[in-house]
Amino acid sequence: MQQLKRLKEIEEELSILGGVRSVLHWDSNTELPRKAAKQRAEHMSYLTSLYHRKIVSEELKNIINFLSEEKNFSKLSKNEKLIVKKYKKDLVRISKLPEEFVKEASKVYSESYHAWEEAKQKNDFSIFEPHLEKVINTKINEAKLIDPKEIPYDVLLYDYEEGMTVEQLKKIFAELRDGIVKILNKIKSSKKYKSQKNFFKTTNCPEEVQRKIVDELFKIIIDDQDRAVLGVSAHPFTTLISSDDVRLTTNYTNTDLITSISHLTHESGHALYNLNYPKELENTILFGAPSIGIHESQSRLWENLICKSREFWKFYYPKLKEKFELVKNMSEEEFYFLSNLVSPSLVRIESDEVTYSLHIIIRFELDIALMEGKIKVKDLPKEWTKKYNEYLGVVPKNDKEGVLQDVHWSEGYFGYFPTYAIGSMYSVMLFNQMKKENKKLMNEIEKGDFRFIKKWLKEKIHSVGSKKLTCEIIKDVCGRDLTAKDYLDYLKEKYYELYGIEE
Amino acid sequence: MQQLKRLKEIEEELSILGGVRSVLHWDSNTELPRKAAKQRAEHMSYLTSLYHRKIVSEELKNIINFLSEEKNFSKLSKNEKLIVKKYKKDLVRISKLPEEFVKEASKVYSESYHAWEEAKQKNDFSIFEPHLEKVINTKINEAKLIDPKEIPYDVLLYDYEEGMTVEQLKKIFAELRDGIVKILNKIKSSKKYKSQKNFFKTTNCPEEVQRKIVDELFKIIIDDQDRAVLGVSAHPFTTLISSDDVRLTTNYTNTDLITSISHLTHESGHALYNLNYPKELENTILFGAPSIGIHESQSRLWENLICKSREFWKFYYPKLKEKFELVKNMSEEEFYFLSNLVSPSLVRIESDEVTYSLHIIIRFELDIALMEGKIKVKDLPKEWTKKYNEYLGVVPKNDKEGVLQDVHWSEGYFGYFPTYAIGSMYSVMLFNQMKKENKKLMNEIEKGDFRFIKKWLKEKIHSVGSKKLTCEIIKDVCGRDLTAKDYLDYLKEKYYELYGIEE
Repeated sequence: MQQLKRLKEIEEELSILGGVRSVLHWDSNTELPRKAAKQRAEHMSYLTSLYHRKIVSEELKNIINFLSEEKNFSKLSKNEKLIVKKYKKDLVRISKLPEEFVKEASKVYSESYHAWEEAKQKNDFSIFEPHLEKVINTKINEAKLIDPKEIPYDVLLYDYEEGMTVEQLKKIFAELRDGIVKILNKIKSSKKYKSQKNFFKTTNCPEEVQRKIVDELFKIIIDDQDRAVLGVSAHPFTTLISSDDVRLTTNYTNTDLITSISHLTHESGHALYNLNYPKELENTILFGAPSIGIHESQSRLWENLICKSREFWKFYYPKLKEKFELVKNMSEEEFYFLSNLVSPSLVRIESDEVTYSLHIIIRFELDIALMEGKIKVKDLPKEWTKKYNEYLGVVPKNDKEGVLQDVHWSEGYFGYFPTYAIGSMYSVMLFNQMKKENKKLMNEIEKGDFRFIKKWLKEKIHSVGSKKLTCEIIKDVCGRDLTAKDYLDYLKEKYYELYGIEE
Repeated sequence: MQQLKRLKEIEEELSILGGVRSVLHWDSNTELPRKAAKQRAEHMSYLTSLYHRKIVSEELKNIINFLSEEKNFSKLSKNEKLIVKKYKKDLVRISKLPEEFVKEASKVYSESYHAWEEAKQKNDFSIFEPHLEKVINTKINEAKLIDPKEIPYDVLLYDYEEGMTVEQLKKIFAELRDGIVKILNKIKSSKKYKSQKNFFKTTNCPEEVQRKIVDELFKIIIDDQDRAVLGVSAHPFTTLISSDDVRLTTNYTNTDLITSISHLTHESGHALYNLNYPKELENTILFGAPSIGIHESQSRLWENLICKSREFWKFYYPKLKEKFELVKNMSEEEFYFLSNLVSPSLVRIESDEVTYSLHIIIRFELDIALMEGKIKVKDLPKEWTKKYNEYLGVVPKNDKEGVLQDVHWSEGYFGYFPTYAIGSMYSVMLFNQMKKENKKLMNEIEKGDFRFIKKWLKEKIHSVGSKKLTCEIIKDVCGRDLTAKDYLDYLKEKYYELYGIEE
């Protein structure tokens, strides 16, 4: 079929343009000289428009329509069918958004982003307020244009967590929130919590020591060093340039070794996923993860479940000790405790494993309240403070460390935040399943043997690519749908023991 | 004029595509994981074909033809006229080469490159021989297609050193060769030369020390650190990504500090040029140097004339000494001698200032002999050896360290080699002119004050962009055409004194 051949060519071009854009993204964050930011933005926007023009082209639309016709569709292979279906879904959505609307929306987000930057710098929410209102209206309009009968937030979730609904999330997040608040309060009343302050300053780790340890961990997690690069950027991230070229970054600005290690293990989880997408789907729309949440499950799994476990430190702490003088007199057990310290804070990206999801739930609840018109944008700082006080017991001094801390809202990422907590819940469900299938898993970690884990993840998750939705993958692998239970049980078991709490 | 507006849009697109290609080139040499080489080649080739399609498009041709018509041309600004003229010249050349020929040629070079790689690895010229024959025939055909009445090598010089001719080069290079051979022989018979062997092993410099020194020199030469980035690659190079984004590399694989410093100062000379192109010509075909030779004059000027001068070491040696223990007991004078050691060798890229041009002249003479059919490809190794023995007094043991050492021929770069020696000659002519205009120049260098040099180069060379040909710039600035005399005088003065030779 001529049309199928042409689709493959277009997909290859899209894949190249996407890869080139990723190189520029990587370079912008790791190398770009300060004064070239505007010129780089022009390069990026040119590539984006080349990419966009191909996606919305009449040619692609016609090919997909042609291949979707029953007589043609039936001749396609299994994977080709999935590819055509995915384009069909995406293109129907795109076709609902008039060019005028897309242009206007992109202007709204761009202005809003700059307003947010200024507001954060000046510590003044009122600068951002009118822009955020516009962003929310734009997102609601977008959702209505795509599907006027659906709940707007459900429509928006498609871009980040296809298959998930607000109804499901409200229920699961409420359970998660109540569970974590209960656990947190128990921790806070424990004796150990009250005396943990002494621990805080023990990790003044010089950059070169951080680098040595981080490089070693990178090699432990990523076997094939000829397909991955570790760099340095202000905010750690992972990106896919081509199937054999995955980049991840960390940074060493913080003198806290635990933070460097968390960055590295987190991004390595993402990188492993990127390295293992199914080769037979290379250069297709299905070469990637089906959602942000499942990608996040991989990073959380390595960061928290594996590399913050007692077993992991049994394996790695002796090696770390050789490199880092300062912890010489600290026992393995003390270091394990230190790496899992619970400490409710105002800032999401600095938060510990127990409180992390509360930060997300607050944002999700505010997302929904804003979209449903239950709160007004001008009341956001007040509502933010109220929820932080209620769930975490901390109160921001100002907008900067409160409602203005994240970039997401300014760029219109409504529906993104939940994926962080969804990822955490998936990570425990997957880890539990893994342990069920291999009773010796924790012993293997203790020995620094991660072969089973890597093989299992590759087989069950990574190599599926986007052939299935996340909810389908989870159901297939774990035999269950997303639940907060596994995660809450995991937190209880780990942290009650850590803080000497009797249930 | 609508057509002029459209030309500017096309030029902007070309400039963006060129910049993006440079990012990929930079990344390929500094970051790319080993196994992604093939995927990256596909990205590069896609961008190259986008670029090429724009250059050879009917639209651009029509615009240039339209703007070249007298009634339109007369309405253009001075710069616009130069831009249209340059495109006209380039496009006439391109139009002479049928698509079929271009395709076939690119295949010849690609196969020849791979054959050269294999031949070098296996140390066997016969693998490369038939391919080089094809390359030479292809280059001759290309020249004939473009202008059947011209000497082929003259036609090819256009791509590297527009305005230069074989006749001129033959004369100048003969003078240069005879002059250098005479100087070299005097040096070789000097007492100091015979005892200099003891100096060789004194610079085992650890990488972190090399880095510290190189970073400091980088900051001394490149004032605006917010527009330039220094990286590491196997072969040092400099590239322009956008007007405020210039990248240069060095490497630290060699433990010889002098080599690191040479790399850095050489590439910084290139980088300074790139940083100072005229802003008003940004995103046009004239935003760049008019030839490779003049670009090379800038790198040679910093590498040799400034940063290997006695005055420079007066300024910098005390700073270097603080960082590098090993040279502690070496005097400034000894270090000056060390950094200018003459030592005829087989490898061009490792050669000293005196012998460097001989390596180039040998290649040029062989270029011409091959193109004129005076020698056969199969005799190349023999001819190579003969010339090395005659001019430098060294004989390669095998093809690998002889005729196979450079990549240029395999890729069809006939006309490129001369630019290296042309650049050296220009560098001295420019430096002499600078000294004539500022009698205190050498004193300023001694004090580490490079303001005059930078300002002068920017004003006289860099900010001209390609508004003039190289020969015109040199004539304007120095009042003379290219000559070997300045360079030979410079070598004599510097090296006779250094080696205690009486003329």
